[in-house]
Amino acid sequence: MANFDVMSELTTGAGGKIVLLVMDGLGGLPLEPGGPTELEAAQTPTMDRLAREGIAGLHVPIGAGITPGSGPSHLALFGYDPIRFGVGRGVLEAFGIGFELQPQDVAGRANFCTVDANGLVVDRRAGRIPTELCIKLVDRLRAITLPGVEVFVEPVKDYRFVIVLRGEGLSDRISETDPLVVGKPPLPCLPEEPGPSAKRTAELVNQFIEAARPLLADQPAANMITVRGWSKDPNLPQFHEVYKLHAAAVAVYPMYRGVSKLAGMDVLPVSGETLADEIKVVAEHWSDYDFFFVHVKPADSRGEDGDFQGKVRVIESVDAALPALLDLKPDVLVITGDHSTPAVLRSHTWHPVPLLLWAPGRVRTDAAQAFGETECARGLLGTFPTTDVMPLALAHAMRMVRYGA
Amino acid sequence: MANFDVMSELTTGAGGKIVLLVMDGLGGLPLEPGGPTELEAAQTPTMDRLAREGIAGLHVPIGAGITPGSGPSHLALFGYDPIRFGVGRGVLEAFGIGFELQPQDVAGRANFCTVDANGLVVDRRAGRIPTELCIKLVDRLRAITLPGVEVFVEPVKDYRFVIVLRGEGLSDRISETDPLVVGKPPLPCLPEEPGPSAKRTAELVNQFIEAARPLLADQPAANMITVRGWSKDPNLPQFHEVYKLHAAAVAVYPMYRGVSKLAGMDVLPVSGETLADEIKVVAEHWSDYDFFFVHVKPADSRGEDGDFQGKVRVIESVDAALPALLDLKPDVLVITGDHSTPAVLRSHTWHPVPLLLWAPGRVRTDAAQAFGETECARGLLGTFPTTDVMPLALAHAMRMVRYGA
Repeated sequence: MANFDVMSELTTGAGGKIVLLVMDGLGGLPLEPGGPTELEAAQTPTMDRLAREGIAGLHVPIGAGITPGSGPSHLALFGYDPIRFGVGRGVLEAFGIGFELQPQDVAGRANFCTVDANGLVVDRRAGRIPTELCIKLVDRLRAITLPGVEVFVEPVKDYRFVIVLRGEGLSDRISETDPLVVGKPPLPCLPEEPGPSAKRTAELVNQFIEAARPLLADQPAANMITVRGWSKDPNLPQFHEVYKLHAAAVAVYPMYRGVSKLAGMDVLPVSGETLADEIKVVAEHWSDYDFFFVHVKPADSRGEDGDFQGKVRVIESVDAALPALLDLKPDVLVITGDHSTPAVLRSHTWHPVPLLLWAPGRVRTDAAQAFGETECARGLLGTFPTTDVMPLALAHAMRMVRYGA
Repeated sequence: MANFDVMSELTTGAGGKIVLLVMDGLGGLPLEPGGPTELEAAQTPTMDRLAREGIAGLHVPIGAGITPGSGPSHLALFGYDPIRFGVGRGVLEAFGIGFELQPQDVAGRANFCTVDANGLVVDRRAGRIPTELCIKLVDRLRAITLPGVEVFVEPVKDYRFVIVLRGEGLSDRISETDPLVVGKPPLPCLPEEPGPSAKRTAELVNQFIEAARPLLADQPAANMITVRGWSKDPNLPQFHEVYKLHAAAVAVYPMYRGVSKLAGMDVLPVSGETLADEIKVVAEHWSDYDFFFVHVKPADSRGEDGDFQGKVRVIESVDAALPALLDLKPDVLVITGDHSTPAVLRSHTWHPVPLLLWAPGRVRTDAAQAFGETECARGLLGTFPTTDVMPLALAHAMRMVRYGA
């Protein structure tokens, strides 16, 4: 892990420009024993050249065998030990939509869902209602008031929204109400620590949910809500303090924008959803920042769909967009994923994540001849904790002084 | 290390079946520079195939350069950091013979030994007296009483037995009495922490030893005793709690049965001493458990004898017995050792231990083409801490949910 006391002593605030390009869920598995992974099957001439010229390795986001969610795995990429710096989904989503959380606020990530006449959940995602309807229904929920606290309700995307409670003495140690399976009713919110704070907060949440029910009664798909990931702002050490980086994030999806903001990055607006659109934003702001985090979501989505060829095509489209990024002449380019999402397993997994680090003139020659899991296993970086990515990037950008005399 | 708080949150109690097959002291060294190790010299077509189909690596039980005893190395295999979870030999032996230790009990592992007319130790193992004589002599020692405590004396095997003191306010922070070399007298037992508990416990131990002396005076070989490894039950986190595994151990030697019991496994009875006998037990209980630990001792014994070819033959016999285990269709099969015992050095050593993990459809392709130290060094798992073995096995059995959203 990046030891932030040490890092903040060593970083200088001067040096080269760094781009961290993350393909969500990049790591994969072969369809058949001995076959290529998605990344290995993809035609990626540019990434293969960068892997040959740079150094490669595989990184482990949380620990051996542990499958990360995207929040924790991005925290690890940014140098934060995700077990020490637990950040709840409510906070991530709130930051992702630009909501300015205050220190005492408690945020929950909410879903519209569908319940049947007996109150049992039949669709946990409310038939994936469109964002326009979400906005309309959230607006209805804004009519709900609770005693002694302010309530904020904000739409996110599709069936997802955020609830924020603001007031004295609230606790985020309260339980989630999503039963996680269909055929069961939403759970009551319960305190998860002793004392009056959690008890009161849980009661407020239950009052909110009961008040929401009649407001949604005329909605066939979105007639109920569930809430998960109750959390407060974790006050992460900030990029400009510990790394002395003026850092920008270019990401389409709210959660990734949220985790970047938590780390202290500026989140830049993007029009369009492709990497080419994102690189255009990077180019426009090239002289304004030392560090760009660029996030590409669809590799993960195709993996979760079980669509091996679709994931291959996403990776190939990233490769095709890369020359425009290289034209900007970054000093350090790191290309990697935040975790593995093998199409064959249709989910996030624990498998180490391929990474290439390209920094002309500052790397040794390694055996990796292309960008792929097997080649990365031959790379000089070996298998290493994801929290080492930032110190390695900063070092190759010559942004750190030596430790000790 | 397995973080047990995190692990117990992530394990589901559902998923595939795991077999952990441990050849004690498996790791080796070549007889001549550049030559094969014992494992590499052995003809092991089945293990070689499993290594090709699976992933391989080398694990480090305690830390770089540190030679483990079998107790600590098994703790590490089971996911317990052996430095944090120190378990004394006394406790291991007591559990190994099925003695039900109570929380305040202090257990010591005792040896019969031979002293000369001057009281100097001439044989630390009493000429390896047979177990039958051990049982007879232990029965004599049961006549000894001590003020204010209950005393239990139980035979283990050959010259080895266990002493357990039961009573209020006893301490296990007392010294060992084995001088560890011949030509010196047994040492007095001394307190190793301040306060009355350790002082009193040490005095009781010395009284026991003095009382044993006349009871053994007619024994030419076993005329004295030494005691080591004073310890209390360490209350390890249990397999069914942290891993949600219904786990069974199949092991012939008492200490391995003991360490398995400490971890919360059911220890199954075995008739016979071969791996084929053990696999028969696994097959009989296949539907009763999620996890089987199977222990094979003789690889270590031949290594300690300096018998390179003997160790090769043990490994070959294990390979020959494997098809019966594969017929059971485990979802995850891990084959490894607990530490290295190279015949050329005739002792446990610090060398990393070869490991193969076979889990069809859930592993990438790695470069290891056979099961041996050099091939394992080319494997995808790299060189990793032994405490990662359990999280990796659980992950490949799909028995864990993701960490965070």
